[in-house]
Amino acid sequence: MAEFFNVLSLDEASRILKENWPQPAMELVGLKEAVGRTLAAGAIAREELPPFQRSTVDGYAVLAADVAGASETIPAFLDLAGEVMMGCEPDIELTTGQCAWIPTGGMLPRGADTVVMVEYTEKLGPDTVLITRPTAAGENVIRKGEDCRIGEEVLPGGRHLRPQDIGVLAALGMTEIPVFSSLRFGVISTGDEVVEVDAQPQIGQVRDVNSYVLGAALGRWGAKVRYYGVIVDDFSRLQDAIKTALAENDCVIISGGSSVGARDLSLAALLSFPDSQLLFHGISIKPGKPTLAVKIGSQLVIGLPGHPVSALMVLQILVGPLIADRDKGAAVLTDNVASQAGRDDFVRVRLDNSGDILKAVPVHGKSGLIRVMSEAHGFIHIPSHKQGLYKGETVTVHLF
Amino acid sequence: MAEFFNVLSLDEASRILKENWPQPAMELVGLKEAVGRTLAAGAIAREELPPFQRSTVDGYAVLAADVAGASETIPAFLDLAGEVMMGCEPDIELTTGQCAWIPTGGMLPRGADTVVMVEYTEKLGPDTVLITRPTAAGENVIRKGEDCRIGEEVLPGGRHLRPQDIGVLAALGMTEIPVFSSLRFGVISTGDEVVEVDAQPQIGQVRDVNSYVLGAALGRWGAKVRYYGVIVDDFSRLQDAIKTALAENDCVIISGGSSVGARDLSLAALLSFPDSQLLFHGISIKPGKPTLAVKIGSQLVIGLPGHPVSALMVLQILVGPLIADRDKGAAVLTDNVASQAGRDDFVRVRLDNSGDILKAVPVHGKSGLIRVMSEAHGFIHIPSHKQGLYKGETVTVHLF
Repeated sequence: MAEFFNVLSLDEASRILKENWPQPAMELVGLKEAVGRTLAAGAIAREELPPFQRSTVDGYAVLAADVAGASETIPAFLDLAGEVMMGCEPDIELTTGQCAWIPTGGMLPRGADTVVMVEYTEKLGPDTVLITRPTAAGENVIRKGEDCRIGEEVLPGGRHLRPQDIGVLAALGMTEIPVFSSLRFGVISTGDEVVEVDAQPQIGQVRDVNSYVLGAALGRWGAKVRYYGVIVDDFSRLQDAIKTALAENDCVIISGGSSVGARDLSLAALLSFPDSQLLFHGISIKPGKPTLAVKIGSQLVIGLPGHPVSALMVLQILVGPLIADRDKGAAVLTDNVASQAGRDDFVRVRLDNSGDILKAVPVHGKSGLIRVMSEAHGFIHIPSHKQGLYKGETVTVHLF
Repeated sequence: MAEFFNVLSLDEASRILKENWPQPAMELVGLKEAVGRTLAAGAIAREELPPFQRSTVDGYAVLAADVAGASETIPAFLDLAGEVMMGCEPDIELTTGQCAWIPTGGMLPRGADTVVMVEYTEKLGPDTVLITRPTAAGENVIRKGEDCRIGEEVLPGGRHLRPQDIGVLAALGMTEIPVFSSLRFGVISTGDEVVEVDAQPQIGQVRDVNSYVLGAALGRWGAKVRYYGVIVDDFSRLQDAIKTALAENDCVIISGGSSVGARDLSLAALLSFPDSQLLFHGISIKPGKPTLAVKIGSQLVIGLPGHPVSALMVLQILVGPLIADRDKGAAVLTDNVASQAGRDDFVRVRLDNSGDILKAVPVHGKSGLIRVMSEAHGFIHIPSHKQGLYKGETVTVHLF
């Protein structure tokens, strides 16, 4: 039986993967296609936002000095000089004692330095407005350039673009967005006992779950996924499949076989490539100890455990952070969870939202079961220096 | 100025929207396309999982009774009867005193009722294996049908399919998955001051941010989005745009204008359709009070506030739960947040992961600013019966 000759810590393995991670190309996409992509360069404002002084309320543009003492009992009386029209530069200039109607988003007329909300005003005939509250200069107003100035970086390179980020780019008129090209992943399943998902397994056989689970996760993270099906535990067939997958992708994910012999065969096939370099074989994590990484030329092959639940968790733990922002949140642990010191443990949890506080309920179940995986909403990480986590502790849940 | 004649609570508005929500059609998609979609019917297992008794470890299949007293000092000596090959029904039947090599995932030979992990064994020549630990019957084994039985519902209808759910469907050989068809959303921006994103705004004008923010959010939730551009505040042009959008979509989202007059115009255009019915106009939430919903025939039009930050938040709060599972997590609030009783308040927060505990930092900023929106990771909800939340409280963060 082949032993893991150099089991790394999770931190070491993560660092090595990061150093050898394929550098994605850059491409331009339209604003409507940019959500979920990763910004390849910082977005620099080429203009001011807003481009003019705007009102944030419906009301009357005034000079703050004119309404300084206004109250319900002693209101200020102002002459209505006109109305600001949306989308136009107002042709009014206010002088002391004057006001102008202004809608939310309208441009302040010259002379005005604040806006009184309509709730604190009363129109007394066509030309006179009564103001019942003072408003300080600058209140209810966004200054020209207050949102951003020319030359400012409004979004950093590497930002995973969410809808609200798309809004910032739209506001600045950025219609062609430089994003990283999606990394291309080839997915290979191995194992003599594994048959294609549309086949009827014979006694002793199971269907290929890993290709679908891993492909779905990679696809959700924005990767382009190609599937190479199930390869039996045969050296030259494995070699051929790896060669084909390397030719068409940036990175290859190979999972299974679940037995030691099958794992040895995958590793031997990977190391048979002339420019191959074993980055690591064995990580001190649970699940996922037999994980391996091999660099072949400038490309990366990651070997994951054969069991789907373990394979998905290792993909989430090792590969997820390199290609996507994963969502996480805190929750209160409902049970004690033991862990072995010196090893990073990952425990699947179900989120329970029934009470006031979000609770994380550990999902137990034999490692060979498939369904327990779909009962979990995420997992918690017990770092190698801890021997467990306690009931009632607040923990960070990495959402699946 | 038009008053909101019947301001609803958030719960009432949500209930009304849900009752009038368009019912999506059903379609079949392949397993590779099913992630992120919503299961239209419960998935019922048509076969057992696993279909045979499997080992979860590499080791020796044995009869538990034979190893009951085994220890380091007094090991059990068993005859090696053969080896289980992956993917095949073993042709061995164990009798007392015998064992067989079995890899992880292999099928237990008849007679065996447990597997001893290879770590607790030693091979003494070709025919004899020494066992140094007892293993109970059923240990390191998954029984036939333990994962699921025929007729069991393995995933409920309505489940938003994650990678791990795809794995369950793959394991059961389900290759054509019934999912809800994506709802089709038309997005219309309005406002005399709003210009297309690729135009250079004149003084007094701003670019259309809402179409992009709202479209991106809907797209991320799996909706099909069509854009109808910016419509000026003109009754018949609004009417035409709504008519076109209704003809091509299940639901129309119309946002802006930010001023009261513009809002009145949108509402009038909506209510001019002969089969229109005002569902609500005004919700007791902040931001988002001027939100409205109109049913036109069997379709729904939702009117959102003009300001992008408010529009996105209301979309998240009202529409999000109806079409997607939103991720959420708990975090500890870093500041007191005041709120008005009788109103549901939503406060944007930034997540700070620098310490041991995830912290939620309220993001302040004038409501007219665009960039504050991209600084937030999510928002917290202050229900109408509370007057605020306190620093140090654990709060649920709805991730954007």
